Amino acid sequence: MKNLVSTGIRHENKQLWVLDQQKLPQEEIWLPVPDVNTMVFIIKTLKIRGAPLLGVAAALTLAHLAETGANLVTLQHAAMLLKSARPTAVNLMHCVDRMMQVLNENIDNTNRFIAEAENIFDEDVKLCQAMGKHGASLINDGDSILTICNTGGLATAGIGTAFAAFKTAHEQGKRIHVYACETRPLLQGGRLTTWELEKAGIPHTLICDSMAGMLMAQHKIQKVFVGSDRIAANGDFANKIGTYNLAVLAKFHHIPFYPVAPYTTFDRNCPNGDAIVIEQRDPDEVLGVAGSFGKVTWAPIHTKVYNPAFDVTPVNLVTNFVSDKGVGMFD
Amino acid sequence: MKNLVSTGIRHENKQLWVLDQQKLPQEEIWLPVPDVNTMVFIIKTLKIRGAPLLGVAAALTLAHLAETGANLVTLQHAAMLLKSARPTAVNLMHCVDRMMQVLNENIDNTNRFIAEAENIFDEDVKLCQAMGKHGASLINDGDSILTICNTGGLATAGIGTAFAAFKTAHEQGKRIHVYACETRPLLQGGRLTTWELEKAGIPHTLICDSMAGMLMAQHKIQKVFVGSDRIAANGDFANKIGTYNLAVLAKFHHIPFYPVAPYTTFDRNCPNGDAIVIEQRDPDEVLGVAGSFGKVTWAPIHTKVYNPAFDVTPVNLVTNFVSDKGVGMFD
Repeated sequence: MKNLVSTGIRHENKQLWVLDQQKLPQEEIWLPVPDVNTMVFIIKTLKIRGAPLLGVAAALTLAHLAETGANLVTLQHAAMLLKSARPTAVNLMHCVDRMMQVLNENIDNTNRFIAEAENIFDEDVKLCQAMGKHGASLINDGDSILTICNTGGLATAGIGTAFAAFKTAHEQGKRIHVYACETRPLLQGGRLTTWELEKAGIPHTLICDSMAGMLMAQHKIQKVFVGSDRIAANGDFANKIGTYNLAVLAKFHHIPFYPVAPYTTFDRNCPNGDAIVIEQRDPDEVLGVAGSFGKVTWAPIHTKVYNPAFDVTPVNLVTNFVSDKGVGMFD
Repeated sequence: MKNLVSTGIRHENKQLWVLDQQKLPQEEIWLPVPDVNTMVFIIKTLKIRGAPLLGVAAALTLAHLAETGANLVTLQHAAMLLKSARPTAVNLMHCVDRMMQVLNENIDNTNRFIAEAENIFDEDVKLCQAMGKHGASLINDGDSILTICNTGGLATAGIGTAFAAFKTAHEQGKRIHVYACETRPLLQGGRLTTWELEKAGIPHTLICDSMAGMLMAQHKIQKVFVGSDRIAANGDFANKIGTYNLAVLAKFHHIPFYPVAPYTTFDRNCPNGDAIVIEQRDPDEVLGVAGSFGKVTWAPIHTKVYNPAFDVTPVNLVTNFVSDKGVGMFD
């Protein structure tokens, strides 16, 4: 496999590495990924995250296994393990299925299999550029934009989904300001989006998720851009918990609300939001916080918690979708 | 001064003590309050909080100073310092003004001054009982109720404001479930409301603030009860940051939304929400968390943050007010 380098994953000299996003922004530590179990662990523990990047990571893992001699049965087993690591991430399913189809059609051609992973990586970079261009077309000079979670170079192999719109608008010389929701419980906004915004030189302010409505009421937000993990055939979509709160708040304040995602996120096999299964995550995440910054628990430790990883936003709260294909609804 | 004991403040044998709410729920530490500067520090650092309790605390501080020999000038200076410790808390202003009026009318009668503080304490206990009765009248058997911040025995001298409704309904045998928003950035819901709900034996679930909308969309919330720090003459009201988010979400989902507060919170001198000044608090609160549970910072440390202590909810999002006087708008 050729060398591939992005913000959050890289393949160099037949070794696969993942940037440990749980350690950011305090430490930048690259983890070696010698086998599929390591990647499944890395996905489940959110050391790597972001729907498009998960698809790329799964493809590179399969290619890396093939390159280091795995046989068909091993690859089929690895594909199954990867798909079960994050059931909500449709990109993950899509990329694994695409790899396995190439394998089935070229059973003895490892080079073709590896090339498909390289294609998936390169395509994601191009998808991000296209999303950035289309997203930026909706952003005006002087806009303040609200976002949630992380949708940048740490969520994709390229410059991101929603974040690509900010980066592109900024590079076009538009004076924008990004308000980043911290995104409890796992703080992807507070830890990762702030880190990427700072690296990109985009003016920004960090807020708690509970402050979004007040900013909108004060007319401080002109647009809301979010990512998406899965878009159903009718346009209902799953994204990081808290997205639905923002969608309702944006609707109430007549603020445009745009999910940004590559075509791979549009799942025509999922009829609507009711069909999207939502993971419940570890209660500890709500009882406190943990990361390379430390671990603290503030709630009484036996407190019952509710901790869905995602929520579902119905299509009627969406102003329009942004994808690599343009602005509109795609499937 | 007679002995006075509540969940969060007590006066015993001429000594004033405050339960350090920043140490809860991990540790229960009572802090001595020998002078006004100590109380101002305790208020500013949120070791004591809750609008009604702040009023009681200010009154007890003034009475304690008088009892230990402070003269008129000292008391006038102390009154000014106490009022400036938390400008949004109208109960604090109200109780200090009430004490100083008694002082002015009974300039040489220290006992009368001290008795007024005792009255304020005893009245607050009775106000809570009345709010509990009226609030519980709105709660049905089987209701699940969403709340934010802490509005219980740690926010008042009695059983609370919104929390009093839960406690009273529970004691009436109604099977209720309380969903407590953790209430970033200072986590009064995660730390204090969970602690009080557990002590009261009320079934409850802790959520992140970002999860409120999803619960509402799933029809898991029948009522929203919140406290209030200040209610303007037109019914707009200030409360913990995040309250406005919940008010908009409740409106969107057609869920009744009730602020609960004693008559002292209704401020006829404040015409509407625009006249309510909102404190901006320390950026560190949003960059991480700190408390007796530890201190961690997860965001890049120079990140610009927005950290309003309160937000303002317009009256058109309020289903009705609950006060000690009943259910309705009062002034």
